[in-house]
Amino acid sequence: MNTPLPTIQNQVAPDVIDLGLGDPPLSLLPLDLIREAAQTRLSQNDNSFLQYGAEQGDGYFRLALADFLSKGYGFEVKPESLFVTNGISKALDLICTLFTQSGDTIFVEEPTYFLALRIFADHNLKVISIDTDENGLIIESLEEKLAEFRPKFLYLIPTFQNPTGTTLPQERRERLVQLAGEQDFIIAADEVYHLLSYTQKPPKSFAAYIDIENVISLGSFSKILAPGLRLGWLQAHPEKIRRFNTCGFLDSGGGLNPFTSAIVSGVIESGGLENNINKLINIYRSRIKVMDSALHQHLPDVKYSIPHGGYFFWLRLPEELDAKELRKKTPAFKVDLRPGALFSSKDGLKNYIRLCFVHYEEEDIEEGVLRLKQCLESK
Amino acid sequence: MNTPLPTIQNQVAPDVIDLGLGDPPLSLLPLDLIREAAQTRLSQNDNSFLQYGAEQGDGYFRLALADFLSKGYGFEVKPESLFVTNGISKALDLICTLFTQSGDTIFVEEPTYFLALRIFADHNLKVISIDTDENGLIIESLEEKLAEFRPKFLYLIPTFQNPTGTTLPQERRERLVQLAGEQDFIIAADEVYHLLSYTQKPPKSFAAYIDIENVISLGSFSKILAPGLRLGWLQAHPEKIRRFNTCGFLDSGGGLNPFTSAIVSGVIESGGLENNINKLINIYRSRIKVMDSALHQHLPDVKYSIPHGGYFFWLRLPEELDAKELRKKTPAFKVDLRPGALFSSKDGLKNYIRLCFVHYEEEDIEEGVLRLKQCLESK
Repeated sequence: MNTPLPTIQNQVAPDVIDLGLGDPPLSLLPLDLIREAAQTRLSQNDNSFLQYGAEQGDGYFRLALADFLSKGYGFEVKPESLFVTNGISKALDLICTLFTQSGDTIFVEEPTYFLALRIFADHNLKVISIDTDENGLIIESLEEKLAEFRPKFLYLIPTFQNPTGTTLPQERRERLVQLAGEQDFIIAADEVYHLLSYTQKPPKSFAAYIDIENVISLGSFSKILAPGLRLGWLQAHPEKIRRFNTCGFLDSGGGLNPFTSAIVSGVIESGGLENNINKLINIYRSRIKVMDSALHQHLPDVKYSIPHGGYFFWLRLPEELDAKELRKKTPAFKVDLRPGALFSSKDGLKNYIRLCFVHYEEEDIEEGVLRLKQCLESK
Repeated sequence: MNTPLPTIQNQVAPDVIDLGLGDPPLSLLPLDLIREAAQTRLSQNDNSFLQYGAEQGDGYFRLALADFLSKGYGFEVKPESLFVTNGISKALDLICTLFTQSGDTIFVEEPTYFLALRIFADHNLKVISIDTDENGLIIESLEEKLAEFRPKFLYLIPTFQNPTGTTLPQERRERLVQLAGEQDFIIAADEVYHLLSYTQKPPKSFAAYIDIENVISLGSFSKILAPGLRLGWLQAHPEKIRRFNTCGFLDSGGGLNPFTSAIVSGVIESGGLENNINKLINIYRSRIKVMDSALHQHLPDVKYSIPHGGYFFWLRLPEELDAKELRKKTPAFKVDLRPGALFSSKDGLKNYIRLCFVHYEEEDIEEGVLRLKQCLESK
């Protein structure tokens, strides 16, 4: 068979609607913005971004990003608190390398982002899960586990969580930061969805707490511009930034993405990034309504909260259902989902499923939910 | 003080000649080639490279790279044997993550690339050094150490080594590959200088031996195009490629550099990369002659072999000299070098220094060596 050469990671057959997939839609990845910024930057008589780059990331890019984040986060972000990454996966990988050894213990939310669990497994870390409720991580559950374990870090998605969509309230954030200081563990806050809020501003990013040496806030362009750029950032205390800047990998290869960040600087400076986010928010907000209405109509036995931001609906099926079993039947109905058990680090959450509302257009979302209903009703 | 924002990693003061620095010269990083390829690719109506990329790297890029390498390496390179990386530092980091645990033992050459040592240190690996001679790694020294240790991998720079400039002959390569199979350790061959040969073709790349599951050949665009792209590749057996493709970090973030590789595809396909390498070879060949002649004239007590490729002269100073001590005096003479001890994993090689002949233009090389002479003669 003559298979076409692959460019995209997750290829879904054209007749299938994969409501589980958490990728942005290809049609909303703004080639025009990138093209324009590339033309401007590459026609300047300055090739410095082709050299080994400053370890922390290009200073001009960090300045543009700091201005943008100051506005988006609602407090002053300083360029010197920013370290440029290849996205959150890379940042997590680096945190594992620099701050853990094989066999160390870390904490995650239950449920959590399933692919982060795979990164931690590659680093041979022992993963302990902390319970969550409709407001995210339960501090008492964390305290219980802290009495038993000494984690190197806690990985959490505090805002519009993947998969649950929940957001950690301000008071829990403050309590968490306090505990991290007292008990000496790092908070690795994955804030990839923070700027995609559809109803009201979320509580302050963990970047507001980086005067505490243990707090690291992770951001990315993957969901607000384009994942193929492999560009993100982290914000941390100067001591942590120093550790990243001086690690062997950075010392040897220089900054993580000089070429792409030079181009994306222009996308930020022109206001293109802000416009793009506003455009995404408007489109995704409508898609939430469509998915909510379709779920309401077709799957009345399913429980969920309407998300206020991010990418996902987190559905609770009737107790007796097993979403992994259900998924065996989805191919026949040309639909797909992600079973809750994927997001569990203790083999739980069998009757939950994650659906993403951003990847498909409105009529496909409706059709997908209808197919899901048919799948659920089939024997 | 109002410091300008940093873009470049290694900034040398304009009045200093740092003959130790192993970076390509900024003036030879071809902005025009990148601009042209970017314009072509970004004006196509195809934004697929902005999506999460195929884990192994874009198929069309791997096809172009395979054609290019087949010609450059002199044997057939298949796209399916190529995995796209962010350069060799990233590839080494990934190899450490996937194939070692904290406390494991690895082997390196003595001397070896000093920043690789720092990557291994970040992964908490125990480094054992293998002796080398004018033909690189000594197989008997390797066999001795293998009787005592079980290394997870051997890191070596087989061709135009950094810092020594030596090249491992064909017979040693074959013996090494055989040993890796018998004793079950990985060969991580850093072949960053393989295509920069100035006199005669080196022996076959380790990519010729990837039918053995333990052989990984690492390549990079850093020295043949531009380091700021953070783009490289590795070649390995299908079983190893599978391990890279399916690791958590790749699963989560997708391929390592979809955007940049889409642009560099065009640089390869247009013949621009080949032309660029030919241009570099001509320029660097002349710079070798200039450095050789200046060393001959100004530093007659220093021993070295003229390099056949790569970036470096490896100088042996009289036994009683300590290059680290010497380096304390270089600032006064506005010159710099890299002391041999940097490249030792057992605190040896005190009377050696590494000089790079590619970074400066001919008159600066002459002037730099003259300053070195003055520094050496000073009390």
